[in-house]
Amino acid sequence: MSSQPSDIVFVGNKPVMNYVLACLTLFQNGSNEISLKARGRAISKAVDVAEILSNRYMPESTVKKIDIGTERVDDAHSGGTTSVSSMEIRIAR
Amino acid sequence: MSSQPSDIVFVGNKPVMNYVLACLTLFQNGSNEISLKARGRAISKAVDVAEILSNRYMPESTVKKIDIGTERVDDAHSGGTTSVSSMEIRIAR
Repeated sequence: MSSQPSDIVFVGNKPVMNYVLACLTLFQNGSNEISLKARGRAISKAVDVAEILSNRYMPESTVKKIDIGTERVDDAHSGGTTSVSSMEIRIAR
Repeated sequence: MSSQPSDIVFVGNKPVMNYVLACLTLFQNGSNEISLKARGRAISKAVDVAEILSNRYMPESTVKKIDIGTERVDDAHSGGTTSVSSMEIRIAR
C-alpha cells in the first residue's frame, strides 16, 4: 500500500502556516511521505504550503507527484450536486 | 525544444471559460501540447480550466505534467520583492 500515504493534510480556510506546521509535525513524528489535499479556492493555498515547506523549512523534501481531479459535492442551495476541482500534492523527504 | 511548448495560456482574472476557449482555439489551430500558467490565487482557476477542458470538451486530452514553483515579483507597496506561488499544467492531445 505504498502508493497511498496515510498522512494526509487537508488544506482549507485556516492560515497557511497552520498547514505548514501540520506537515512539519507529521515529518517530525516519522512520516516519510505526506499528502496535501485541497478543493476549490484552497488549491492555491495548498501550493503555497508545499512551496513554503520545501523552500524554507525542509529543503531536502521533494514534490513527488501532483494530481488534479474533479469531485462531486452536495450543493446546499440547489439540493443537487456541483463539481469542484481538487488537487493532491505528495511530498517526500 | 520539445520540452517547452510555445503555446501558453496565462490564467488570470478573467472568467474561467475565457481560458477554456483560449485552450480550445490553440488545439483547433494545430497545437498538440499547451501550457496553462498561473500565479497566486489564479492557480485554483488554472486547475478548473484543465478539468473543464478534459472532462467536458476534450476527453481525449491528458494532463502530461504539473509543476509548482515560487516566483519573485515586485511589490508596489513596499518597493521590494515578494514571493508568489506559481503553477504550470501541460495538457497534450
